[in-house]
This record gives sequence, C-alpha cells and structure tokens, in this order.
Amino acid sequence: MTNDFSFQNTTKVHFGKNALSKLSAEVAPYGNKILLVYGGKSVKRIGLYDKVVNELKKADVEIFDYDLVKPNPRHTDINIGGKMCKDNGIQIVIGMGGGSAIDSAKAIAALAVADTDNCWDLVVARKPITKALAVFAIPTMASTGSEMDASCVISNLETEQKTGYNGPAIRPKVTFDDPTNTFSVPPYQTACGAIDIMSHTIDTKYFSKDDKMDMLYRMMDEHVKTVVKWAPVAYNEPDNYEARSNLMWAASWALNSFMTCGVRQFLSVHAMEHELSAVYDMVHGHGIAILMPRWMRYILNEETAPQIARMAYEVYDIAKDTPVMEAAEKAIECTEKLFFETLGLESKLSNMNIDDSRFEEMAKNACGANGVIKGFVDLYPEDVVNIYKMCL
Amino acid sequence: MTNDFSFQNTTKVHFGKNALSKLSAEVAPYGNKILLVYGGKSVKRIGLYDKVVNELKKADVEIFDYDLVKPNPRHTDINIGGKMCKDNGIQIVIGMGGGSAIDSAKAIAALAVADTDNCWDLVVARKPITKALAVFAIPTMASTGSEMDASCVISNLETEQKTGYNGPAIRPKVTFDDPTNTFSVPPYQTACGAIDIMSHTIDTKYFSKDDKMDMLYRMMDEHVKTVVKWAPVAYNEPDNYEARSNLMWAASWALNSFMTCGVRQFLSVHAMEHELSAVYDMVHGHGIAILMPRWMRYILNEETAPQIARMAYEVYDIAKDTPVMEAAEKAIECTEKLFFETLGLESKLSNMNIDDSRFEEMAKNACGANGVIKGFVDLYPEDVVNIYKMCL
Repeated sequence: MTNDFSFQNTTKVHFGKNALSKLSAEVAPYGNKILLVYGGKSVKRIGLYDKVVNELKKADVEIFDYDLVKPNPRHTDINIGGKMCKDNGIQIVIGMGGGSAIDSAKAIAALAVADTDNCWDLVVARKPITKALAVFAIPTMASTGSEMDASCVISNLETEQKTGYNGPAIRPKVTFDDPTNTFSVPPYQTACGAIDIMSHTIDTKYFSKDDKMDMLYRMMDEHVKTVVKWAPVAYNEPDNYEARSNLMWAASWALNSFMTCGVRQFLSVHAMEHELSAVYDMVHGHGIAILMPRWMRYILNEETAPQIARMAYEVYDIAKDTPVMEAAEKAIECTEKLFFETLGLESKLSNMNIDDSRFEEMAKNACGANGVIKGFVDLYPEDVVNIYKMCL
Repeated sequence: MTNDFSFQNTTKVHFGKNALSKLSAEVAPYGNKILLVYGGKSVKRIGLYDKVVNELKKADVEIFDYDLVKPNPRHTDINIGGKMCKDNGIQIVIGMGGGSAIDSAKAIAALAVADTDNCWDLVVARKPITKALAVFAIPTMASTGSEMDASCVISNLETEQKTGYNGPAIRPKVTFDDPTNTFSVPPYQTACGAIDIMSHTIDTKYFSKDDKMDMLYRMMDEHVKTVVKWAPVAYNEPDNYEARSNLMWAASWALNSFMTCGVRQFLSVHAMEHELSAVYDMVHGHGIAILMPRWMRYILNEETAPQIARMAYEVYDIAKDTPVMEAAEKAIECTEKLFFETLGLESKLSNMNIDDSRFEEMAKNACGANGVIKGFVDLYPEDVVNIYKMCL
C-alpha cells in the first residue's frame, strides 16, 4: 500500500526556444541587484552569457559576476559568493550552467542571509533552509535536475566530504529551460548527464523497499525509457531538439518529486559515487555509470529480482515470458551495454588510475555515522568495498 | 517538435489516510474565519464533516456552513456564498466533496473579493482571476481534478449555459486527498468519475494536432491505462485502497498540467457534453461516456487513425502488429466495452428520455460564437448534431 505523502513543487518553468524572453519580467518582482553565477568560458562561448545580460538589461538591474563555478562546487568558493552578496546587497542569484552552477547559486543564496560566513556551518547544522535570496536557474545541461529541486551539493576538499543542504527557500523561483542551450554539450558530458538523470529514478525510487503507487511506477518506467531512448540520439546528434528537450524535461522530472510520492528516497549508488567524486574528483555521472550495473549485480537475489526484471520488461522491451532471474540479468547487461558501448564510457576504475588503496576508507565514509547505506538493499562497508572492487 | 510552454502548479498536496491531520496547521497562516462548502448529507453520513470540524477546531477558528452544493453548481447559489463571505469577513473557503463542491468554493472565493455580487459577471468578463480568498480542497471523489487546477465550472440555468472562470488565485492552496474518503462513492458515481479522469487526458491532450513530447506522451498512455485498470476494481470493490488511491491521484494529474506541457488544450467532447449537462442536467461523466466513443468513431480517418491506434497498442495492449485502422477500431470497441459493459453505464440517450428535438440548438451552443469546436478534428454544428444522433 502506498505510504502517505505530502507534495509541493512551486518552481515556475519556462520551457523552449523562447524561454529566456521571459527573464526580465520574472526577475522584476524580486529586486534589481543580481548575482550571475557561472563557470568559466562555455556560457560565453555559446553566446548565452550575452543573451542573458541583454535580457536582464531590459529591466533596470545591476549585475554582479561570480564565475568561480567548477564541477563539484567547493565550499570555499561558495563562501566567496556569499560575501559578494552581503557586500553588495544582492537580491537575486541566477545559476547559469550545469548542476554545479545552479547548486552554487542555491548555496550562495542561503549563505547570503545566514548568520555565518562559512557555508559548511549550514551543512553541519543539518537544518532545512527556510530563508535565502531568490534563486533563478538557467540550465545548460540535462542532468542533476537542480533547476526544480530544493537541495544543493557542496564539496569540502579539506575533509574530502561531498554533501549539502536543502529546504524550500533554495528551490528556484523560476527556471528557464531552453533545450538549444544544451546543443553544445559534448558527447561525454551528454552521456554522464543522461546517466545521472536515469539514476535519479533508479537509485531513489524505482528500486525500493516501499510499495509504489501503480500509476507512478508506470511513469517511472517511461521516465527511464525516455532516457534510454533519447540519450544515444543526443550523443550522436547534438543538435537534435527532440532528444535534447526530452532529456532536459526528464532531468527536471527525475527530482521534482512528481513521481516520488510515497516512496522514501534513498541513494545507494549516489552515496558510493560521492566518495569517488570527493576523493578522485570524478565526473558524477561517470561514477554513477561505473557503479550502477555492478551494484545491481551485487544486490540481485530472489527478493530483488522482480524489480530488476521489471526494468527489463518495461524499459528494455525484453519479452515478458522471460523468467524473472534471467530477465533481471538482461536488465543489467542492457544497462552495461548502454553505458559502456552505446554511450562510450570507460567501465573500469583501473583504467582511470584508480586502485583499491582507499576503498576501505571510502566505504566507511559512504556508510556514514550509522555504518550502513540504507536502501533497496542495506549496504555495509564490506559490501561497498566489494562493489568498488567489482568496478576495478 | 514540442511547442514552447510555461508551467507552474503551486498546490500543496497532503495525500493518504492521515492527510486531514495537517488541516489546522495549514489553515492557520490564512486566517480564522472559514466557510465550509459542501452539499447535502453525504459528507455528514460518512463522518467527514465532523472529522473536518474537529480538526479545524484545533486552531482557533470560526466556521460558517454553506451546504447548497449540487451537481453542476448554479450561479445563483454561488452568489449566496459570495454574500456570506462578504457579510462575515470570511478569509478561507474550504470545498469538501466532489468537483462541484470544490468548484463552488473557488467560484465563491473569487466572488467574495469582487466588485460585483453576481458571479456571472466574472464569467462574462473572461478575465483571469487574480484575487480571491484562500481556497482549500477536501475531495471525496476521484473525478474532476479541481483540487489541483485553477478553474471552476458554473451553470446558469436561466441561459442554459455551463462555463466558468479561471486564474491562479482560485487554485487551491492545499488539498487533503484521503482515498478512504472515496470508499463510499457508489459504483455509478465511481464509473462516471473515472471516465471524467480518462477524458481529461484523452480530450485535452492525448488526441491532439500538436506534437507531444515523447516522455509526456508515454506518461499519458500510462495515465489512461491506470484508469482503465483501476476503475473496474474500485467499481467492484469500493474499499480497495490501492484502486481508490490510484484513481484519486490520477484525477489530480489529469488536470494539474504535469503532462500537458506544450500541447494546446482543447475540449471537444467536453464542449458537446456541457450541453447535455446544461439542458438535461446529466451527470457529467456519464455524458462524456456516451459521447467519447461515438466522437472517436466519427473523427476516425486516415489522418487521425495513428493516434487512436496508439491507444489500442499502449492502453489496451492490442498486439502491435495489428494494422493501424483495425487497431483504431479496437480502441473504440475496448472503450465502449469498458464504459457500457464493465462499468455498467447506459449507452443510449434514447433510453434516458432524450430525443433529437434540441440537438440543433445544443450543437449551435456547443460551437459557440465562432461556430466551431476547435480540436483534434474541428467540429461544426452539423458534425455535432451527427455525433449526438449517434448517441441515440
């Protein structure tokens, strides 16, 4: 029976080729001092930076630039952004780029009104963020779904931790989703993003101890199938609008809670992957790709097989008369084939200069204070080490 | 290619057996003078009225009763509710019941802050409603989806018109969706509600001239399939929680815009049905049931067949190698079988004391000022008369 749930997602979405034409009108009610949060050159190269600035100037605004965004945003960089907001009376923080840019915008927006100047204090406090500057999002990748969710992830390179904070105040007020802004995403990043999207369904709700409402379970099937279908198209045809728009909207849906209702969210693969990112600065979606099929194989047993087999039947169109355990194996094989052949990702950590020397420590961190990753199947440090070793 | 779209749905949902336990906490921020909008005896018989009043009394509130709700809410009744709000300084309007109760609450909430005392003036003005008292919803039927949408439908028995108004201000702030509150809905009403849900996908977006985003099209398949699967279960087992919860959440999803994005909404069957309701006071879902398969048959041609055939393949599990036109025919047959056999609804207007004497006039009204019902296939008055006649 479906668990009781509460649901609300207030983000307004402007989607499509003309999404940004709404920008100045949406900004106006929130103020006129804006921090533009982005990273490096790509938003300038594709002309997005100029387009956004020109749109914003239709309103009478003052723009400040924060261009320190990197993959896996550092807490020290967020602190710089927080100080910029406090020093300049910023009212609106616009994250422009991939998940790292939008997460940075959220983290900065919360820090800007906090009693501390160190965002890691907010991480450690573990309290929902209830006040922040207004956050806007202009995603340029289909990946994290940060544009409609209420959380951000920050890395602390000193402690080698990757975690974050969340709360209604940092959910973007408005997101401007123009699929053409993702045309220039290179194939490798397109693949990593797509796998991240897929994992947000698989790893948080599709495989789960909780009963799923039939309607939502069906929609999860179709969500994953959408990624399986369109990721290879976008990988091979970067300018394919249909592929890019399906992936972009699928990214938002994966974490906007539309399909989650009633299922407790766990993140087994994410917990293991965060250690790979934190210790080896690996691209998140690539780490997920390496871990996910190995995790599926590791947890496959009589009890978990029906859910994994469903993925075979409903997502990969494996014949429904295939026996459950055989179908589950096929789901794993299809997933590996998609990630490591069709989308061309390296499958072995050993080919990426990673050996087993830190696996014990990473497994311990992944399991956290309680010594276990709770989820579809609970994982203890020895399980996590075993899964890491399967990835060598 | 998917059209550009904008999306926002701010309604907070508390769903499940304990949904109402959140009521007093949610009401508090909006005020303490509450109009309870309901109709007749059923909410008292099932104990819901007492439960709601007891929950509300946990906050320090004053409750006023408006118990005039009937199927197809009358504009004259709405006017009485508006006056009650103005006379008593009401701040919150809670619709408790089926779509008619929630629509009445919305209509009253808008009228309560309007410059007129006649809600029909708001209908005629055709302006989005931007101010209203806070609307809350406690649905007791899975049907109209009024609990998450921003519109209401009102009937004017003097002019025999059925129309309404809409706007962000009348979208419920919070809805409390407890599937057990629908256990007592009789089989006939359960069937009519389920068909209404299904039609909100079929009639507004599933059959459409506009391109649909692949992911959303797949979700529409599953939405309709959910109703096809669970309506017969709820019809035969009124206390089946799984069936009732799937239907309840499916009702909200049908009109909460989650699946609509990019598809212009038309309502061909609804336009024709509103005349049946207005002239013969027919139960809306029953009118939809009678019209929908006849409409599908009337508009079936080489151009429309692929979309109708998709319903056969994806919703009714007809073999995918069935030729398109044959599959489309099967979709219509399966729909008729579901409505008129499995769900036991009378299929012929002639068996309901309705003859063709007013069809011309009804068709003219259905086609409105422009003389055409725009939609998947544009319908002119002669088409509408033909479809009505197919229902005799």
